[in-house]
Amino acid sequence: MLTKTPRGLKSSKHHLLERGVMLWRCIADDFEQAILVGKHENGSKLPAESEIATRYGVNRHTVRRAMAELATRGLVRTERGSGTFVKTDKLNYPISQRMKFSEIVAAAGHEAEGRLQGHRHEEANEDIARDLGLNVGDEVVRLEILRAADRVPISVSTTWLPADRYGDAAKVFRRVRSITRMLEHFGITSYRRKWTRISAGFADAVDAGRLRLSVHRPVLVTEGLNVTEGGEPIMLGRVRFPADRVALLVES
Amino acid sequence: MLTKTPRGLKSSKHHLLERGVMLWRCIADDFEQAILVGKHENGSKLPAESEIATRYGVNRHTVRRAMAELATRGLVRTERGSGTFVKTDKLNYPISQRMKFSEIVAAAGHEAEGRLQGHRHEEANEDIARDLGLNVGDEVVRLEILRAADRVPISVSTTWLPADRYGDAAKVFRRVRSITRMLEHFGITSYRRKWTRISAGFADAVDAGRLRLSVHRPVLVTEGLNVTEGGEPIMLGRVRFPADRVALLVES
Repeated sequence: MLTKTPRGLKSSKHHLLERGVMLWRCIADDFEQAILVGKHENGSKLPAESEIATRYGVNRHTVRRAMAELATRGLVRTERGSGTFVKTDKLNYPISQRMKFSEIVAAAGHEAEGRLQGHRHEEANEDIARDLGLNVGDEVVRLEILRAADRVPISVSTTWLPADRYGDAAKVFRRVRSITRMLEHFGITSYRRKWTRISAGFADAVDAGRLRLSVHRPVLVTEGLNVTEGGEPIMLGRVRFPADRVALLVES
Repeated sequence: MLTKTPRGLKSSKHHLLERGVMLWRCIADDFEQAILVGKHENGSKLPAESEIATRYGVNRHTVRRAMAELATRGLVRTERGSGTFVKTDKLNYPISQRMKFSEIVAAAGHEAEGRLQGHRHEEANEDIARDLGLNVGDEVVRLEILRAADRVPISVSTTWLPADRYGDAAKVFRRVRSITRMLEHFGITSYRRKWTRISAGFADAVDAGRLRLSVHRPVLVTEGLNVTEGGEPIMLGRVRFPADRVALLVES
């Protein structure tokens, strides 16, 4: 999309509108690019709405929509009456034996949210069967969960659990909105992470939409297995984090 | 560069040569793209040299150069007499208290290599001073090291050590070619990783060159502090891994 100077946008405005690309989104992309290449320091104040409006040749409503989009992407915070400030500090997400999303987010001073995006029963493939101690073809429950901190998307995850024991997982999660509380429902009061594998790549179109992320920005991917205190596998997960918003932390 | 079908390359061959882009590199990029989007499975055999030569309208020497480039990037291995095979399995790199590059690589059945690319003395900035327990402006030694497994680049790292104690670090590393043995020279026989922070991004031009990586491929970045058994900071490091070749592994 737009990676050049604002001048480029102004001259191609008509063209962009013709092609149905929303102007506020282009302005937000332009600022995102500038923030990510370090043109605006963390905590610095963006120009006033009127100044941005003049620079891009748009009205203030469009600028306001662009700034709201940047806030949704977690790149700025707007303080009523004082302006919009750049926010490039990432959420430090600990990879530890007993990490719990809500606690991590609360400890960082944010409000956590987990929303079920989809679920289904499916047959375990070779990888899932091996890690969960099942046979290939055994039924597993698959959950797709979007997590946010202060309404900024922080991760999308796919989680698999053995269906014989956790068949109602989706229904329970939708009610309690937390993996920890969902497992409590099934009598698991304590569990730990056995291993985590970390890689990087790009979001697919579905993830990009849910994370409000451009498909050109990298994501961190963790795959991991959670087990009971006795070592019995509970759930296998694959989590995608926008690398611009989250760093993973391993402490010894 | 080239992300379309081979047909596109053939027709633009003259144009590419005109612009000084080497043909073998374009063919290698074309295969890299196909491998990374999953068009060739791990372990599958690539077409014969003669077939590739015909398809791209080049001679076999050019194809051989392209295959050698893919091997250098760690994407294929060539078995004399039987052909060229796709290799998309990543090196699993454990993030543990006592990880040592040479042991990790040897355990995976590869030959490890570490080469000093550059070094200098510089003043500690705020971050380095805080992590190493120094004052801002204190002198630190900075080492740039390229690591390879079976001659495939696996990481580039920047390491900072307090200059008052490790002033000769570069000279010693160049001789012993291992951080572990370098620290032994300074009387440190045992050390551990205190924390590791993992993020993702893109390689800059220098890193991309050293890693033989396209600037559009993501890198995993680890920042970490090593300390003595007593907890005294020894060295702070920032390592960049090509995400296509390496996954980080955290075991509890």
